[in-house]
Amino acid sequence: MKLRLGMIGGGQGAFIGAVHRIASRIDDEYELVCGAFSSDAKRAQLSGETLGLEKDRIYSSYQEMINQEKLLSPAKRVQVISIVTPNNVHFEPAKLALENGFHVILDKPMTLTLEEARQLEAISNTAGTKLCLTHTYTGYPMIKQAKELISAGHIGKVRKVYVQYLQGWLSTYLEGSDHKQASWRTDPAKSGIAGAMGDIGTHAFNLIEYVSGLEVTHVCADINTIVQGRQLDDDGAVLLRLTSGASGVLVSTQVATGAENNIQMSVYGEKGGVEWQQDDANSLLVRLVDKPTEIWRTGGSYTGSLANHNTRTPAGHPEGYLEAFANLYRNFALTLKTDLGEIEAPPEAADYPGIREGLRGMAFIETVIASGKSDQKWTPLIL
Amino acid sequence: MKLRLGMIGGGQGAFIGAVHRIASRIDDEYELVCGAFSSDAKRAQLSGETLGLEKDRIYSSYQEMINQEKLLSPAKRVQVISIVTPNNVHFEPAKLALENGFHVILDKPMTLTLEEARQLEAISNTAGTKLCLTHTYTGYPMIKQAKELISAGHIGKVRKVYVQYLQGWLSTYLEGSDHKQASWRTDPAKSGIAGAMGDIGTHAFNLIEYVSGLEVTHVCADINTIVQGRQLDDDGAVLLRLTSGASGVLVSTQVATGAENNIQMSVYGEKGGVEWQQDDANSLLVRLVDKPTEIWRTGGSYTGSLANHNTRTPAGHPEGYLEAFANLYRNFALTLKTDLGEIEAPPEAADYPGIREGLRGMAFIETVIASGKSDQKWTPLIL
Amino acid sequence: MKLRLGMIGGGQGAFIGAVHRIASRIDDEYELVCGAFSSDAKRAQLSGETLGLEKDRIYSSYQEMINQEKLLSPAKRVQVISIVTPNNVHFEPAKLALENGFHVILDKPMTLTLEEARQLEAISNTAGTKLCLTHTYTGYPMIKQAKELISAGHIGKVRKVYVQYLQGWLSTYLEGSDHKQASWRTDPAKSGIAGAMGDIGTHAFNLIEYVSGLEVTHVCADINTIVQGRQLDDDGAVLLRLTSGASGVLVSTQVATGAENNIQMSVYGEKGGVEWQQDDANSLLVRLVDKPTEIWRTGGSYTGSLANHNTRTPAGHPEGYLEAFANLYRNFALTLKTDLGEIEAPPEAADYPGIREGLRGMAFIETVIASGKSDQKWTPLIL
Amino acid sequence: MKLRLGMIGGGQGAFIGAVHRIASRIDDEYELVCGAFSSDAKRAQLSGETLGLEKDRIYSSYQEMINQEKLLSPAKRVQVISIVTPNNVHFEPAKLALENGFHVILDKPMTLTLEEARQLEAISNTAGTKLCLTHTYTGYPMIKQAKELISAGHIGKVRKVYVQYLQGWLSTYLEGSDHKQASWRTDPAKSGIAGAMGDIGTHAFNLIEYVSGLEVTHVCADINTIVQGRQLDDDGAVLLRLTSGASGVLVSTQVATGAENNIQMSVYGEKGGVEWQQDDANSLLVRLVDKPTEIWRTGGSYTGSLANHNTRTPAGHPEGYLEAFANLYRNFALTLKTDLGEIEAPPEAADYPGIREGLRGMAFIETVIASGKSDQKWTPLIL
Repeated sequence: MKLRLGMIGGGQGAFIGAVHRIASRIDDEYELVCGAFSSDAKRAQLSGETLGLEKDRIYSSYQEMINQEKLLSPAKRVQVISIVTPNNVHFEPAKLALENGFHVILDKPMTLTLEEARQLEAISNTAGTKLCLTHTYTGYPMIKQAKELISAGHIGKVRKVYVQYLQGWLSTYLEGSDHKQASWRTDPAKSGIAGAMGDIGTHAFNLIEYVSGLEVTHVCADINTIVQGRQLDDDGAVLLRLTSGASGVLVSTQVATGAENNIQMSVYGEKGGVEWQQDDANSLLVRLVDKPTEIWRTGGSYTGSLANHNTRTPAGHPEGYLEAFANLYRNFALTLKTDLGEIEAPPEAADYPGIREGLRGMAFIETVIASGKSDQKWTPLIL
Repeated sequence: MKLRLGMIGGGQGAFIGAVHRIASRIDDEYELVCGAFSSDAKRAQLSGETLGLEKDRIYSSYQEMINQEKLLSPAKRVQVISIVTPNNVHFEPAKLALENGFHVILDKPMTLTLEEARQLEAISNTAGTKLCLTHTYTGYPMIKQAKELISAGHIGKVRKVYVQYLQGWLSTYLEGSDHKQASWRTDPAKSGIAGAMGDIGTHAFNLIEYVSGLEVTHVCADINTIVQGRQLDDDGAVLLRLTSGASGVLVSTQVATGAENNIQMSVYGEKGGVEWQQDDANSLLVRLVDKPTEIWRTGGSYTGSLANHNTRTPAGHPEGYLEAFANLYRNFALTLKTDLGEIEAPPEAADYPGIREGLRGMAFIETVIASGKSDQKWTPLIL
Repeated sequence: MKLRLGMIGGGQGAFIGAVHRIASRIDDEYELVCGAFSSDAKRAQLSGETLGLEKDRIYSSYQEMINQEKLLSPAKRVQVISIVTPNNVHFEPAKLALENGFHVILDKPMTLTLEEARQLEAISNTAGTKLCLTHTYTGYPMIKQAKELISAGHIGKVRKVYVQYLQGWLSTYLEGSDHKQASWRTDPAKSGIAGAMGDIGTHAFNLIEYVSGLEVTHVCADINTIVQGRQLDDDGAVLLRLTSGASGVLVSTQVATGAENNIQMSVYGEKGGVEWQQDDANSLLVRLVDKPTEIWRTGGSYTGSLANHNTRTPAGHPEGYLEAFANLYRNFALTLKTDLGEIEAPPEAADYPGIREGLRGMAFIETVIASGKSDQKWTPLIL
Repeated sequence: MKLRLGMIGGGQGAFIGAVHRIASRIDDEYELVCGAFSSDAKRAQLSGETLGLEKDRIYSSYQEMINQEKLLSPAKRVQVISIVTPNNVHFEPAKLALENGFHVILDKPMTLTLEEARQLEAISNTAGTKLCLTHTYTGYPMIKQAKELISAGHIGKVRKVYVQYLQGWLSTYLEGSDHKQASWRTDPAKSGIAGAMGDIGTHAFNLIEYVSGLEVTHVCADINTIVQGRQLDDDGAVLLRLTSGASGVLVSTQVATGAENNIQMSVYGEKGGVEWQQDDANSLLVRLVDKPTEIWRTGGSYTGSLANHNTRTPAGHPEGYLEAFANLYRNFALTLKTDLGEIEAPPEAADYPGIREGLRGMAFIETVIASGKSDQKWTPLIL
């Protein structure tokens, strides 16, 4: 049985809404049954019709959607709600959904503030509903492989972590024109206290904590607004201290003119290192002392169960961003279906980003912005 | 409205059936409504149930499926049938489907013989039904871009074409064990007169004719069976002559030990060249005399309409094999829906491989195998 | 006429001495005429003989060499002295050479302290002798090209600079064994106050100032000694502020286990960016908004005069580390010969690292080590 | 003691002469003592002076040089003569040198005809003089490593060899202008019966025989002259049969518009494969069944004695074309010095291309051109 999926936001013209829908379809674990696609009623309606929804399940607001769906029979009502709106419309709908018994798939960052994130955590705990946060990059098979190798001690105790996320699309004052994506991402009312650090810095932060298995304990941030007139940071670099004495660097910028979506990371331990970049997403370089560097590949006969569980095709058939995204959707579905007693998912299915990752991301945002304003070198990241 | 899709073959455990289904879902243009997934009745039933089909539309044979679906109302009956069986079960079901008014999506190579392919062409013409042949690699955005650049004269008149498709998975006598994929692919009764040349050589052939816009007129083939005991070719290399005086080389092997699924091509003209490889599928190298080589990228702001039409995400979000496959499904759907008057698809949607490509592929197989046995250097490829 | 070259240090078994000699020979601008290759008299003698020097010009100390050579006729005596000893034997021999009328080629970092570097500057000015500091990486043709493009405004005003230099060879306590290279580099008496930051961090610093045309004004450094028992830093990361409001990150570590000699840099400006890595040294990626990324190549017909002057072979014939090193030797020779009135070198020959780069490198070392100990975020780099 | 080197050809403006001289200097095994640099007396003189030769050892013809040098004392006269002229000036000077007691370093292809090559072989045998043929690409450390791995059985019995050498510089009628390199290479009187096949096809042929340890026994060649007006082939592709039942493909073209100097090869055996390309010359990909692909690197701590002997710098310091060329010069020198009893070179020094490689190259040229004209598929390559 497919899980019944609803969507908040993601109307026509939105980028990430379409990505979510593709991700939800790839593994056939979901069926889109309802949506509140836009605060513009006409657009909401049109979007829903184009998607083939029944008319009475196309809603003009998320409140209406949640309230109405609750009235439907358990066998019909939506089970999982994807929230793909700007950051300022994360907390309220997620809260409403979670406390009314609906599971939530939520775009990152989790909320506008850490305090809101803590509230969602409490609600989720009370209501017994679950949340998946779409930190897409941890969905790549070779990122899973990196995590598995490190947690198995393959490169020894971790010493150094490096992660960079370079984009160039905000290298001009794009929000001055009528550019939807740029406008809300650079607007504090919609995006929160962070720009680039919230939008892509949190991805980098999540990626490196996920792969290394460590937690950032202190940051020293250089936060900049480079394009004139912009209200939020569009650039930053952060020195990191992590648990177990590791240290590292996180770079996140949206003004690396000409860069596309260049996220890459490397982790070095006492015995070796791993290196990965999204532009060659199906390869993981594994470096060990005094041995030739190895290229581990998605679909290889030698990869571990965590990577294999998140792979669909044999080696040499490139899996990409949409498949990484779909891995989040699939693992969340497998987990929920296991909860429902419908299946018994393998343990690998539990490996998806959730509330804990959301909390840490919000702590990162608040800490890194504070550090950016501080003259002190190190600011502790406390959760 | 989604097109109603049926499937022949592709039961549990089959590789390519699952790929077809993912491809059919990505763009939400199809709804799987029926299937004859296996000649094993139990497996057929189980496969259909797992896929959530209505029980009475899970059939135990393709004949039954086509006959029964015909009896359903036009609004309910299947519209498009995907045939994902071994080569020896291409012709009969495709024939039956086409002549009974169903459109067909067919795995390559089209049939066992060129003669069968010609029959399908005739039936399709008479019945007014259409066929899409899944030459996946022409679905990549940067392959589309290469075709568009060349047809626009960007590199001048084409002189040289090179294409290679290297796999290593058949470098041992895998069919000696119980390996399903290896067994039918190396069995003349199921695969036809060609092994590697039919399985992957036809992809390479199709790719290079597609991108260059030229047709192969003569071949000189070295066809080998390298692994002892094997019944069909597992390796080959072909010198090519093409229309307009161009020439080139096609290499196709399944015994390049350690290679995964390495398909790459390059085309050089009077003014420049283009180079592409699947392992870096979202990049197209464009070389022009006395200029820095350019890297054209999927989702770039400078790409042409053919690539753009086949791209879902912004530059830097890698699209892979499944998206390339989905492009075939999507374009076929857009074409059929335009025929039905439901939409008006852009001209780019007509760009999918069909009967003509199937005929040429079969002519290639027959010519190349004949050439392999000939002492004469050149054998004409006549269609 | 070749310049007469002498060498201090670089006896048998030394790595960098051999590199200097190859570099001096590649373009035939020098003839090795004398040397004080080792403080071990026997080894000094043997080294000199192996190199084919006349016996009476193999010296047992640099003092002897400089004093004796001074007594020779101007037409015979050494003209340029390469000093390839550990850092603690830079200042004294360089001072003696410069003040006695000999030009100097000196390994980086220039001295043990900034104060010593200032003294060398004063002596050089007074004596009219010149110094070339072997910051090898600025000798690469594509680094020259990057500099030329940026200084011509090709990528607009520079905003961001990133440079990283990752090595892994010191990831264990190598100095505990009898490892010559490791021993002096980790010994404060021989290396100065910095380990990795002096050894390779200064290269990274020099590279990014050279390419960007900017100067670092403030640093915020995280300096670590990761391997237990080590006396100096083996790892560090530095946030940078530069003139014109640019900012960036410098990473330099010798404990990136498994990394070889991975130096790479990128610079982004208002209109585009450039990216280079030594592992693909003959390619420079040039990214401009809304255009395909370009690959500029050593020997290309479109490259500028600065790159061309430093290139020996046509495009596609890889030039490497030794050629980059040789470019320093060659440009210094061309400059000296121009001073001597023997030739008239093109302006590109003046582009080699010298005293100014040495001073800035020493200021970098002192500032970055101070910053590493400071709780304040930013420490000004003052020269 | 350095070997005394003379040069025939390679006057000012010549490309390959300068390359030879750099190669001869890199390892300090040679001293240039005389030359006949040009048939133009003035240019010969000027070239010699620029190179710092003694006036009376700058000759106006190779005959004069050889005759005069013979008269000098054994301790003074030239020992090794480099011949860097167009192909039509290979045989006579090489013959004269060899039979007069001088060793020869000769540009490829060896002569104009196989018959001439056989004569040189006989003379060399009689006179006891040696010849080194500059097949540069076998000088790369990672090519040495590939050879060593294959000969040690690391990838099992060889089945497939692929080699391609793509250049684009002759994609226009360059010889119509006053382009020295293009003019002689496309002139049958100077180049022989082959154009591209002689100029670069022989490199590809030598490379694949060297690495695989096999010999080509049959060829099936498609030989083309693509640029209008050209007198010799500028393009070709060759199917290969080799000893031990291996087969393969050789591609060699000078009209791959936009390509630089793209030589690459791969060899697949029963257990694995190796892949190398000059654009990433310091990496060798080693693929073994069911294992991650390994990247073997120049200077790695795990490389074999053949690679190590031909490496000058630690891993991560790229060695390039000039170093590969220098390896030929160095190994020839070590061999000659061992013959002279001056040193005892390690066995790896004997690994340089010589007369045997020259003979096979000439047989390749004659066979491949004959095959190109034949209607028969296979033409035996007989030596």
